[in-house]
Amino acid sequence: MTALAVADKGKDNKQLGGAGLRGQSAGTTALCTVGQSGTGLTYRGYDITDLAHHAEFEEVAHLLLKGKLPTQAELDGYKQVLKQARGLPPALCRVLEEIPADAHPMDVMRTGCSMLGNLDQELDFSEQESKTDTLLAMLPAIICYWYRYSHDGVRIDTASSDQDSIGGYFLEMLTGKAPSELHKQVMHCSLVLYAEHEFNASTFTARVCASTLSDLHSCITAAIGSLRGPLHGGANEAAMAMIEQWQTPDEAEAGIMDMLAKKEKIMGFGHAIYRESDPRNALIKAWSEKLAADVGDTHLYAVSERVEQVMKREKNLFCNADFFHASAYHFMGIPTKLFTPIFVMSRVTGWAAHVYEQRANNRIIRPSADYVGPEPQAWLPIEARK
Amino acid sequence: MTALAVADKGKDNKQLGGAGLRGQSAGTTALCTVGQSGTGLTYRGYDITDLAHHAEFEEVAHLLLKGKLPTQAELDGYKQVLKQARGLPPALCRVLEEIPADAHPMDVMRTGCSMLGNLDQELDFSEQESKTDTLLAMLPAIICYWYRYSHDGVRIDTASSDQDSIGGYFLEMLTGKAPSELHKQVMHCSLVLYAEHEFNASTFTARVCASTLSDLHSCITAAIGSLRGPLHGGANEAAMAMIEQWQTPDEAEAGIMDMLAKKEKIMGFGHAIYRESDPRNALIKAWSEKLAADVGDTHLYAVSERVEQVMKREKNLFCNADFFHASAYHFMGIPTKLFTPIFVMSRVTGWAAHVYEQRANNRIIRPSADYVGPEPQAWLPIEARK
Repeated sequence: MTALAVADKGKDNKQLGGAGLRGQSAGTTALCTVGQSGTGLTYRGYDITDLAHHAEFEEVAHLLLKGKLPTQAELDGYKQVLKQARGLPPALCRVLEEIPADAHPMDVMRTGCSMLGNLDQELDFSEQESKTDTLLAMLPAIICYWYRYSHDGVRIDTASSDQDSIGGYFLEMLTGKAPSELHKQVMHCSLVLYAEHEFNASTFTARVCASTLSDLHSCITAAIGSLRGPLHGGANEAAMAMIEQWQTPDEAEAGIMDMLAKKEKIMGFGHAIYRESDPRNALIKAWSEKLAADVGDTHLYAVSERVEQVMKREKNLFCNADFFHASAYHFMGIPTKLFTPIFVMSRVTGWAAHVYEQRANNRIIRPSADYVGPEPQAWLPIEARK
Repeated sequence: MTALAVADKGKDNKQLGGAGLRGQSAGTTALCTVGQSGTGLTYRGYDITDLAHHAEFEEVAHLLLKGKLPTQAELDGYKQVLKQARGLPPALCRVLEEIPADAHPMDVMRTGCSMLGNLDQELDFSEQESKTDTLLAMLPAIICYWYRYSHDGVRIDTASSDQDSIGGYFLEMLTGKAPSELHKQVMHCSLVLYAEHEFNASTFTARVCASTLSDLHSCITAAIGSLRGPLHGGANEAAMAMIEQWQTPDEAEAGIMDMLAKKEKIMGFGHAIYRESDPRNALIKAWSEKLAADVGDTHLYAVSERVEQVMKREKNLFCNADFFHASAYHFMGIPTKLFTPIFVMSRVTGWAAHVYEQRANNRIIRPSADYVGPEPQAWLPIEARK
């Protein structure tokens, strides 16, 4: 086969499959539907709107990881387990202290998760649920310990909080004071919305890793690395960087029109799967509006709404889950660089649930590639090279 | 759609695609062919047998990462760059000292790589080649620093060696003395054989991660996590654990027959892509035989050969790249738990080259899943749950 013929074959296969495996099935899941049955997003059959309105994040974590919504006794017990698992091992604290203040916070999450794998190794798959509990409990502690130490020189006691929810605990560790009921409610909603989304790139990364029968910490570490990418988890940070440039809705409109004219990418809009809307947008947008009123916001919410309108009018594009998360997190006083780590604290539930699924019915994920390189060539001794 | 209909749809798609994406194209590559054109394995068109016989590992790294076999001046310059990049940053040494002696060495590699991402962050893709050079230079230092500190209480100076090859440097850091020419040659061959293998699970993990436009260290960290799995990189360690039980070829034959009767999985045989043989086996097997003579081996090589014969006779299965690597590494005095980390030191070249390719023509890798979960269900208040 000549090189050209090989390239042509590559092209045909690519047309068949679609770049980025879009629309191709890579396995089965019982966890989630995206864009099916007239409803945008379900976790184990429950509509995301019901979950976001009625459930604490820990109920959703239980649903995803243990297969059912918990009874009150189960929920209380689960929250107690998580609460007791928060205190970071001293060796992990010392590692976090070695990470400089200008590091990327997702690199901190990735390294903290990987280091935990050395200290709390999953030796057998029968331990997967208890290792997930510890990881879920410790991820907020990891980012807050590093942030407070590297930025403020403070060594926080990660076991000291009375907060009984992951969202409340995160806010208390970050700020040093107990959060308001409003802020805890927003964190529940936010963490529920980000918990699971089928075979997105980070979850698929976790499943490919799991398919070699690797350990839980390897799978989650790998997924964090994927979520770090600006095409994936970094969108809420990019949206914040954009909207905070503008002081009025008119300024925002002019800015967006200018970006569109220059064909710049505008983060927080559109989706790889959704075509008409992202069901998570209305849910987080409502909380952003409440928070704006609560903090006496003068322009950021109005700027965000105008951007939404202009993008719909000009490009027929809708806000995805990330866009109004930017203003919501900002109103709660969360530094922009910690937005994507919050995504990790939530999505670790979906990632781990997918790891369990992959393990329960595994075949190693090993696709093929279309070769587009040079034809077979004879060995070239070093003296003959140019 | 009912749950049953959804499940049926799932089944159809799965038949179409094959579990584990086997045989499905997930993109293009110019790096490697596996099992095409009558030759088992080529890197950029060069046959693996030519490369293993004639090339130093650093020539192959240059071929994969910089697109061509180097001239003598290019090779000398490249080796100099790698040699000068070996010294670990003090913060990385302190992190490695926090990892206990009973940690999994692949968790150490994963954590070392992730930590390096905090200290030597890739801020722009224009830095990808220099960041890869540093990583390639430091991975042997990472594993040896941790191993010597945790096992022997020694803090080695990772910048001190005069060895000009990665294989020689690894052996000197591990043992504290300069390796023989024979051992350096074996390391070149071994690292060449493991450098690249198309869309295997760890490389595909790296590409999925890269497709979010994440940084190099995230991609390589993720790939290390995948390679850790016993269905992937762990096979040479498993092969060693098996063959070292037996003192004679007859004992080995009896042992294998017993394992086959019990339908136990025998590691180091067969392959996801190759059907008749693995071209890497003959190459490493020849070195294992030479090493056996060199150390005066009384049985391990003979045991390995008998296992190969019995597996061919009974199951028509061939040795893959991993099987004779076990005895070869053992004859060089390398502890079994460090076998898979050597694989990392080599495959990082292929992983990084695939990251470059993915970035150069990217679309986020986001497949779909066949839903096999519960039908849409109404919200269930906590009081109503069982």
